[in-house]
Amino acid sequence: MKKINFSRKFDKFSDYWSPKVIAEMNDYQFKLVKIMDDFIWHRHDDTDEVFIVIEGEISIEFEDETIDLKSGEMLVVPKGVRHRPHAKKEASIMLVEPKGVVNTGDEIDKLTAPNDEWI
Amino acid sequence: MKKINFSRKFDKFSDYWSPKVIAEMNDYQFKLVKIMDDFIWHRHDDTDEVFIVIEGEISIEFEDETIDLKSGEMLVVPKGVRHRPHAKKEASIMLVEPKGVVNTGDEIDKLTAPNDEWI
Repeated sequence: MKKINFSRKFDKFSDYWSPKVIAEMNDYQFKLVKIMDDFIWHRHDDTDEVFIVIEGEISIEFEDETIDLKSGEMLVVPKGVRHRPHAKKEASIMLVEPKGVVNTGDEIDKLTAPNDEWI
Repeated sequence: MKKINFSRKFDKFSDYWSPKVIAEMNDYQFKLVKIMDDFIWHRHDDTDEVFIVIEGEISIEFEDETIDLKSGEMLVVPKGVRHRPHAKKEASIMLVEPKGVVNTGDEIDKLTAPNDEWI
């Protein structure tokens, strides 16, 4: 049992759009991600997905609206809903989702990242 | 789909040790809690439990150690492990756990709080 300090974990990597696992709770994972610019449109057919902004500002584009989030804010993206995360400047976020979720969901892309990269 | 601002949610209540649900992801809930002084010793036999400190400092006492956590830090308490949260001064935390988890776990106490209180 070891406590996790978000800031110290973010210091350990610098690549964008590549989620790093920091904790598991039952069959769920907590992942840190640095993001900048556009991600790709995708959806997760089997699960909701939680975005928590730790530092910076992001926006998540949906087919009919765009939601802006800043540090201290979170959003639950319901399963099956197409979305595209974006950040104008580097932002640091935490994702909460079941083990095994692929970052690009139903799309395979050059941004598709390997799972279970722990830091 | 609505974004959640932690600080604005914490402004909506002032009671201690009484978790307020702010979001659901699949069958999991995100709950905000203000805490001060000692909670009771308890354990959750069926689930891990995540503590994320949003503001202030807390400590979680275990049978063989005490772990201090401050804003920007988190801890996963494994299922079945007895623990007692504590805060010297008021602290604001977020819990992540499956729907239906009782805050005092295996103990019924005056601190046992009702579930599904949304804010």
